[in-house]
Amino acid sequence: MLSDTQSKICEAVETDFSGLKACIVNASLKPSSEPSHTDTLLDVVAEIFERRTVAVDRIRLSGHYLAPGVYPDMTEHGWEADEWPDICDRVIGADILVLGTPIWLGEKSSLAQAFIEKLYAHSGETNDKGQYLFYGKVGGCVVTGNEDGIKHVGMGVLYSMQHVGYTIPPQADCGWIGEAGPGPSYGDETDDGGRVGFDNVFTQRNTTFMAFNLLHMAKMLKDAGGLPAEGNVRTEWDDGSKPGWPNPEHRLDG
Amino acid sequence: MLSDTQSKICEAVETDFSGLKACIVNASLKPSSEPSHTDTLLDVVAEIFERRTVAVDRIRLSGHYLAPGVYPDMTEHGWEADEWPDICDRVIGADILVLGTPIWLGEKSSLAQAFIEKLYAHSGETNDKGQYLFYGKVGGCVVTGNEDGIKHVGMGVLYSMQHVGYTIPPQADCGWIGEAGPGPSYGDETDDGGRVGFDNVFTQRNTTFMAFNLLHMAKMLKDAGGLPAEGNVRTEWDDGSKPGWPNPEHRLDG
Amino acid sequence: MLSDTQSKICEAVETDFSGLKACIVNASLKPSSEPSHTDTLLDVVAEIFERRTVAVDRIRLSGHYLAPGVYPDMTEHGWEADEWPDICDRVIGADILVLGTPIWLGEKSSLAQAFIEKLYAHSGETNDKGQYLFYGKVGGCVVTGNEDGIKHVGMGVLYSMQHVGYTIPPQADCGWIGEAGPGPSYGDETDDGGRVGFDNVFTQRNTTFMAFNLLHMAKMLKDAGGLPAEGNVRTEWDDGSKPGWPNPEHRLDG
Amino acid sequence: MLSDTQSKICEAVETDFSGLKACIVNASLKPSSEPSHTDTLLDVVAEIFERRTVAVDRIRLSGHYLAPGVYPDMTEHGWEADEWPDICDRVIGADILVLGTPIWLGEKSSLAQAFIEKLYAHSGETNDKGQYLFYGKVGGCVVTGNEDGIKHVGMGVLYSMQHVGYTIPPQADCGWIGEAGPGPSYGDETDDGGRVGFDNVFTQRNTTFMAFNLLHMAKMLKDAGGLPAEGNVRTEWDDGSKPGWPNPEHRLDG
Repeated sequence: MLSDTQSKICEAVETDFSGLKACIVNASLKPSSEPSHTDTLLDVVAEIFERRTVAVDRIRLSGHYLAPGVYPDMTEHGWEADEWPDICDRVIGADILVLGTPIWLGEKSSLAQAFIEKLYAHSGETNDKGQYLFYGKVGGCVVTGNEDGIKHVGMGVLYSMQHVGYTIPPQADCGWIGEAGPGPSYGDETDDGGRVGFDNVFTQRNTTFMAFNLLHMAKMLKDAGGLPAEGNVRTEWDDGSKPGWPNPEHRLDG
Repeated sequence: MLSDTQSKICEAVETDFSGLKACIVNASLKPSSEPSHTDTLLDVVAEIFERRTVAVDRIRLSGHYLAPGVYPDMTEHGWEADEWPDICDRVIGADILVLGTPIWLGEKSSLAQAFIEKLYAHSGETNDKGQYLFYGKVGGCVVTGNEDGIKHVGMGVLYSMQHVGYTIPPQADCGWIGEAGPGPSYGDETDDGGRVGFDNVFTQRNTTFMAFNLLHMAKMLKDAGGLPAEGNVRTEWDDGSKPGWPNPEHRLDG
Repeated sequence: MLSDTQSKICEAVETDFSGLKACIVNASLKPSSEPSHTDTLLDVVAEIFERRTVAVDRIRLSGHYLAPGVYPDMTEHGWEADEWPDICDRVIGADILVLGTPIWLGEKSSLAQAFIEKLYAHSGETNDKGQYLFYGKVGGCVVTGNEDGIKHVGMGVLYSMQHVGYTIPPQADCGWIGEAGPGPSYGDETDDGGRVGFDNVFTQRNTTFMAFNLLHMAKMLKDAGGLPAEGNVRTEWDDGSKPGWPNPEHRLDG
Repeated sequence: MLSDTQSKICEAVETDFSGLKACIVNASLKPSSEPSHTDTLLDVVAEIFERRTVAVDRIRLSGHYLAPGVYPDMTEHGWEADEWPDICDRVIGADILVLGTPIWLGEKSSLAQAFIEKLYAHSGETNDKGQYLFYGKVGGCVVTGNEDGIKHVGMGVLYSMQHVGYTIPPQADCGWIGEAGPGPSYGDETDDGGRVGFDNVFTQRNTTFMAFNLLHMAKMLKDAGGLPAEGNVRTEWDDGSKPGWPNPEHRLDG
C-alpha cells in the first residue's frame, strides 16, 4: 500500500515508537460494510504506524450509533441508546488520534461533527495531574473528497482537538481532492489500472509527514510524562461557580 | 412572546403574505421531549410568520432518525431505516426554510450538518423549468449558544442553502450568545424574573429583520413564478458525462 | 472568451437587463499591472453581463491603497491616506457586486478581507427608506486557486454580503481549483494549446448560473423598488443607545 | 496587569524557561499610535512570559506596510515598497509566535490575513535538517471583539500555523467577546471603575493556559533540538517537478 518512497522513508527511521497506541477514526457516511475512500488514505497512515510497531485501533463511526448530545453517556440524558460509551475508552486510551472524514458540500461529515461533540463531552474531565483529559495526546486529520475543502475541514477538526487538549504537531492535516467538479475519489481505479491519488506527491508527502510528526510528538510527550502541570491546571481556577453549565469544558466534575 | 416593538412592527405591515408556507427546522441535540433554547428564539420567527398568516410547519430533527448519507432515501443504500423520506416533502414543499441550530465548540450541531447533507441529497433534482429543485425558495438561519459562533455557523448554513438553490435575502442570520465563557442560554430565566436575551435589541432586531426579509423575498419570488429559466437550466449543460457521481449536484437524474 | 454553450445561452435570453449596473472587484494580490488568474474567470462574468447590455465597472483592488479600518474614510481616523473614498461610490452605486478572490492557504486574500471591512464600514448607513444601504442589491463570489478552498472562501464572502444587506441569489458562488497539490491556475496555457479550466463544465456552468441569477435577482429587486420597507427598518429599533460603538452596523448615524 | 490568581500561578512555576524567545504580533486595524483592545489581552500573555524570564518582542502590524503577495520580499515582484523583510527575522527567529487579532464581521482582520500570507511566503524554505522552516516552533492565538467569533478566527489562525510547521500546544486559543450585539470591548473601563473582561474567569484562565502551554511545548522542542528529521524531510520528495509554482509550500528553493 505504501509507495516506494514511503517504504524507504519508513525503513530509514531509527526512532523506536513501540509502546505508542494510535486510534484512527473514519467518519465516512457509508455503511461500515461498504468500502470508504477515506479509509483508503487512512490505510497509508495505519501502515506507516504499524511498520514502526505502533498499535493501531481503527473505528468506523457509521458502524456505531452515537446518540446526539454532549454528555459522555446520552442514555442518562433522555436517549434510549448510545454506543459512544462502548468506544470512548479506545479513543481516550490512545496516544494518537487521527480523524478521517469525507467532504460534503465543503464541510466535514455529520458523523465527524458528532464525533467532535463526543470529544467535547469529555472536555471537562481531568487527568491525575488536574489537566484536561486529552493533554499529552496528539491529533491529526485526514480528509478526502472529489471536489473541495481539505483545508476548511482541517481547520475545524484540528481546532476542536487542540481546544480540548490535544497537541497538534506540524503539518497534521493531509488529504486528496480532485479538480473542481465531479470526478473520481481517492483510490478509485483509473482506466490505465492505476488508482486515483496514489501518485499525487503532495497528498502522499503530507500524509507521510503527518504520520511521522504525530509519532515524534506523541513519543516526546509520552517520554516526558505529558506536559508539566504548571500553569495549566483547571482546579486552580475553580471558583465555586455554578456547576452544571451545559458546555462540557466548564463542568466541574472534579 | 413578541416584544412590544415586534408586535407594533407586525401590526404595521400591510403586505399580504397569506399563501406562503414556512418550514422551521430545529437541529438541537436535545431529545425532542425536552425544551430547547434554540426553539425559544425560533418561536419569535414562527410567531411573526403566523401573525402575518403564513403557514408554519416545525420540525425537531432529534425526533427523527436521519440515516447517514447523501441520497434521498438511505434504505436504498445500505441502511435499515431512514426517516428523512417521511419529512423531506415538508421541507421541499415550503417556500421558506429556517434552520435553527445550537453552537457546540463553535460549530453547528451534527444534526444541522446531517440536515444539510439531506438538502444536498436533493441538489441534483430539478423543477419543471429544469432549474435545481430549491430555486424560488428562500432560506435563513437562527443560531443560539452561550458562548461564541453565530456568524461562523451562519456562514456554513447560508452557504449550503444558496449553493443548492435557495435565495438568501438581506440579513438572513440572527442569534444570541452571551459573553465569552459559560453562562445562561437564550430564554433561561434570570434572577429578576426576566428571560435571557429577550431584551437584547440586537438579537430581537436581527430576528425580526430576518423574518420579514424572508417573507418579502419569498412573496416576490412566488409572485414571479420563481426565477426566470434563462441561463440557469441544468439540462443545457448535460453532456453525456458519466452519471452516478457521488456528489448529488452532479447526478443526472433527468 | 465565452464557450459555445455560454454564447448560445446568452443569445437565447429574452429578458431585458439594460439599465442594470455591475461592479466586479478583483482581490488578487498581484500588482494591477500583472495578469491575474482570477481576472480570467471574472472576464466570463463580465462578458455575460455585457452581452446582456449590463454596464460593467471593474476594480482591481491591488491598484488602490485601502487604509486599515472600518470607517468609510480612514484619513479621519489616524491614517495619512486612504483610497477607499475614491472607489466606494462605484461599489455602492452598482446593483450587482461580484467579488473575485484567489485562495491562499485555504482563505480569501487579505485584500478581499480588507474589501469586506470596507463594506462593513458602511453597514450602519441607511437608504431613503430607512433600510441598510445595501438592501436591494445582489452579490456573488468568484474564487480561483490551484489547490483548495472555493467553498470555504465563498462562505465568508457571501455571508458578509448578506449580513450587510445584499441579497444572494441561488448558486452565487463559482470558481476553479485543480487537484490537490501544486499545479497550473485558471487560464494557464496547457501543452496542447488549451487553457486550464476553460473546458471544465462544472466551473463554466456555475459561473454562468451565477451570472444570470445575479441578473434576474437584480432586475426583480430593481423593478420592485427594492424590498418593501416593512419589518426591516433600522430606525424602528433605535433606542437612544450609546452611539459610536466601533461596530459599523451599530452606529447610529441617521 | 495579572490577576492575583495569575500572579500566584506564575510564582509557583519552577520550570526554567529562560533562553526562549517569543514574538507577539498584533493585527489590530487601529493605527499603531492608538491603544488596541487586542493589545490589552496580549499584555497578559507578554507579562506571563516576562515573569518567567522569556524574551518578548512585540510587533504592531499596522505600523508596517506589508505589500500584498506571498513572496518574502514583494519589491522583487512588482511592488515599490514592502516592510515585511524588515520584520520577518523577528518572527522567524522566535521560538514562540502569538498572533493577536480583532474580529470584524466574524473574521480575523485583513492585517492578520496579510500576516498569514507572509508566513506562507516562507513555507517552502527549510531548516538545516531539511524540514520546513517553522518546525520546532510553537504558535498560539489571541482574539478580541465585542461580538462573536473567537473560535472561528482561532480555527483559521491555528490551522495556518500548523500547516506551515508550527506545533500547536493544547488550548492555544483564547480571547474575549461580549454578549451578542454592540458593547464595550476588552479592557474598556466600566462604570464601577473595573475593566471589561478582566474578571472573566474563562478568558483569563484560557489565556494563562495558552501562555504556559506555549512555554512548555517550546521548551520541550528546543531542548530536543526540534522534531527529529525522520519522515518529515522535504528533499526526500523532491522529484524534479517544475519549480516556481505560485504556492510557496511547493517552491523548490533548496
